[in-house]
Amino acid sequence: MNKVFIATSMDGYIADKDGGIEWLHSVPNPNNIDMGYGDFMSQIDAMVMGRTTFETVCGFDMDWPYQKPVFVLSNSLKSIPAEYRDKAELMKGTLKEILEEIHRKKCHNLYIDGGKTIQGFLKEDLIDEMTISIIPYVLGGGIPLFGELSERLYFECVDSKIYLDKIVQNRFVRKMNVNSI
Amino acid sequence: MNKVFIATSMDGYIADKDGGIEWLHSVPNPNNIDMGYGDFMSQIDAMVMGRTTFETVCGFDMDWPYQKPVFVLSNSLKSIPAEYRDKAELMKGTLKEILEEIHRKKCHNLYIDGGKTIQGFLKEDLIDEMTISIIPYVLGGGIPLFGELSERLYFECVDSKIYLDKIVQNRFVRKMNVNSI
Repeated sequence: MNKVFIATSMDGYIADKDGGIEWLHSVPNPNNIDMGYGDFMSQIDAMVMGRTTFETVCGFDMDWPYQKPVFVLSNSLKSIPAEYRDKAELMKGTLKEILEEIHRKKCHNLYIDGGKTIQGFLKEDLIDEMTISIIPYVLGGGIPLFGELSERLYFECVDSKIYLDKIVQNRFVRKMNVNSI
Repeated sequence: MNKVFIATSMDGYIADKDGGIEWLHSVPNPNNIDMGYGDFMSQIDAMVMGRTTFETVCGFDMDWPYQKPVFVLSNSLKSIPAEYRDKAELMKGTLKEILEEIHRKKCHNLYIDGGKTIQGFLKEDLIDEMTISIIPYVLGGGIPLFGELSERLYFECVDSKIYLDKIVQNRFVRKMNVNSI
């Protein structure tokens, strides 16, 4: 199972025009509720992300945030920087080859993260579930979650929750077609 | 109050790459539930739409669907075709001028419809509420609901409902800023 757990603006951006993501955490959250992130992570065997997301996480001014294996998909990155080699593994090849390799390592429930990586998985119809939290700004431009597809993909919204009286989180599950049960 | 009530794909399109909207009504709806449309319309004094939406509605193979006054915003249209003159009124000018004119006609709660019209209202921060139903396709391209903005706009999600076990409808209300009460 390949799952997405991500936040976007109302107009579908994951970062603003300058690449900024401070708006993602701008809604006051005095009790630090995690909006389902802990539950989601507990069902996950490993993370799969692209170079951009990996480098963003490396740049955060905090400890390494993941307790699960992280696979970094990049054809341009030569190697994982030394200080992250016990945390992340570089993967090259087609998505099919990479997934086979990850499955051989007994990781089956995967958290697919990062705009380009998610778009790559969607292009090959490899996403089973998407949990999308809408941080309620209309940004008017930025880095979009979704990209171009040659074929439409049908999902169903199976769950919706409102957090902090402001943020809605919708969970979509891939279905083969609109009439499937 | 200027309100939007619209459906989009998961990736934020209101029509597909060919302008098609058949997918909007593809989820089986055996009991013809109206997903809040009747309630919404009962609170509305008039509709405001652009030329494209007006011509799309005129092209539907059905009776005129609106019981409320319809204002058509267009600077290119010369006049409303004769058979629709008792149903729709052409408005020209800036949004501010047009809204003043509509308010003079005692229409205050307005249903703002059509992609370009909604984008024009958002550009001038003239939308108070947006009810967005997500028809759960990732289309991979099409005509987007949202456009470019110079300034971000902050809303809050105040309500969320799932219809037909598949479609989620989120209602967002404009707030001045993230800390306003």
